[in-house]
Amino acid sequence: MTRHSAVPPPVTAVLDASSRWLPARLGEVEERLREAGAGHGEPLAEDATATLAAGGKRLRPLLVLLCAGADGGDAAVRAAAAIELVHMATLVHDDVLDAAPLRRGQPTVAGTSGRDRAVATGDLLFSRAFALLAARRDVRATELLARASVALARGELAQRRDAFDTSIAEQRYLERCRLKTATLFACACLLGRSAAGGGGEEELRSFGAEIGLAFQLLDDVLDVSGPPECTGKARGTDLLDGTVTLPLIAAAETDPAIRSVDLRGLDADAAEALCDRIAASGALDRVRSRALAMVAGAKEQLESGAFDAEQRHLLGLVADGVVQRYS
Amino acid sequence: MTRHSAVPPPVTAVLDASSRWLPARLGEVEERLREAGAGHGEPLAEDATATLAAGGKRLRPLLVLLCAGADGGDAAVRAAAAIELVHMATLVHDDVLDAAPLRRGQPTVAGTSGRDRAVATGDLLFSRAFALLAARRDVRATELLARASVALARGELAQRRDAFDTSIAEQRYLERCRLKTATLFACACLLGRSAAGGGGEEELRSFGAEIGLAFQLLDDVLDVSGPPECTGKARGTDLLDGTVTLPLIAAAETDPAIRSVDLRGLDADAAEALCDRIAASGALDRVRSRALAMVAGAKEQLESGAFDAEQRHLLGLVADGVVQRYS
Repeated sequence: MTRHSAVPPPVTAVLDASSRWLPARLGEVEERLREAGAGHGEPLAEDATATLAAGGKRLRPLLVLLCAGADGGDAAVRAAAAIELVHMATLVHDDVLDAAPLRRGQPTVAGTSGRDRAVATGDLLFSRAFALLAARRDVRATELLARASVALARGELAQRRDAFDTSIAEQRYLERCRLKTATLFACACLLGRSAAGGGGEEELRSFGAEIGLAFQLLDDVLDVSGPPECTGKARGTDLLDGTVTLPLIAAAETDPAIRSVDLRGLDADAAEALCDRIAASGALDRVRSRALAMVAGAKEQLESGAFDAEQRHLLGLVADGVVQRYS
Repeated sequence: MTRHSAVPPPVTAVLDASSRWLPARLGEVEERLREAGAGHGEPLAEDATATLAAGGKRLRPLLVLLCAGADGGDAAVRAAAAIELVHMATLVHDDVLDAAPLRRGQPTVAGTSGRDRAVATGDLLFSRAFALLAARRDVRATELLARASVALARGELAQRRDAFDTSIAEQRYLERCRLKTATLFACACLLGRSAAGGGGEEELRSFGAEIGLAFQLLDDVLDVSGPPECTGKARGTDLLDGTVTLPLIAAAETDPAIRSVDLRGLDADAAEALCDRIAASGALDRVRSRALAMVAGAKEQLESGAFDAEQRHLLGLVADGVVQRYS
């Protein structure tokens, strides 16, 4: 249940399909992120800047910008940068806890600069997110992002609390995914809509939450299925961390004894063997199907009439992109 | 340079001297803090609640409420709770890094629940702070607190970056204190003023920053002077952590060779011996005098005419309280 380590967000496809405003707007987001990392007049900014420069495909900012549309302007750009800052802050803090030396093939702050600087860097990124919104006096956006941040922290706590507990119910797993992943996706969509005005808030909240949930489910499938050459990490990494995800829970439907495995006793080989056992149960296909159904449900939300043809098309591409690497 | 571990904020004296509105308002702040910790519907809230319940004398909330005055109302209460949440979040994260089992004689989250939960708990408290302000649509307060939070993170990074460097200049030390401590005190005063309106913002900013700086200087003196029975920690704890503070820097004025001590090689006995050497240089009195001068300067800010007699009196008591344990 590492977040999105290997999901290739569909930035390229969306950019190819979009009109000219989107690439420019994404460029402005990058500029804001650079400022957020660098504006401290001290070499301390190194870690923050390296983190932001290394980071990902900007899927959440992309959702903000798309939901705002061409008229989103500076409010959308700031919100897009802010949500990415919160996301990165959480990742930096996760790496502290997991003592992870690499993320997305790049050295982590915790790995290169030590845990101390990583915790402080995360705090810095967090604060800069709210500073970005506050500077624009964007109260609604601040409220949305603060609530989503609380959910992230709660999800993180829940996951660590549940660690090594193979009796976890599906409902509890899904609740964790909502807190840890889906809420921030939904927040991205609402931030965008809030920047530009317009209706369809409820539809966008559902759209974001559903693709976020699908995203997490598919990420968790990938941890079991590999292959490592594609994911950049060994199979069963979540299991070794004690994180029980839907593939294991679903496998227990046909192979109930799998709940008795002691995850604390796993080594890398045993984790791979457990992955094979989960795969043999047919659970991966069942989880994939559920994720695909979620994405389909998400796309239906776009048919409500609150969105123009371009928005429907581009958001649909994002939704498709979530499943692309797994199909 | 542990923050304020043993400074007894002058809450009692201020409460004794104040009219009836203050105790009730402080009670509301406690209620907000309880809600912030408990409002998550899960046992996850345990750590947050324990942290907030254990915590300190609420000096920063007191400053917010006093600067707001009797008319501060709910805006002041929320701002007071929010600044304490940010302060506590930073302390929880500090304890992760220092692997501290106790703070103020109470077990830390990092000590009882592990680093994982402590990092997430800090993030949760952080987010709740901004959620509190956002729910009231208090944009100016959000901006003030976000900026102060950035300063805190920068100060933390600076301190860890400077660790074990005995060549640190006084200027650099003071800048660190401003970022780590004084800015949040100044923020408390500005938050209060912002809640109630009224002039004197610049005076209050100076007042808060000066007493914050004095507070940190005196805390750093106490780390060297002890006695441990009063401070609750061994003498030289900062030195053992590699934190070079003004007492050592001031000692080097008459004992330049002290800059050549290798702090990495210290054990507890050597740290105590180094404390004795700093004390023998007369540096502690010099630092104390500077702190007292700062407090006097802070109190002068209150004479500007922007404050009524009760505010002047109560804020003066807070300023006096900062030095009380040390005089």
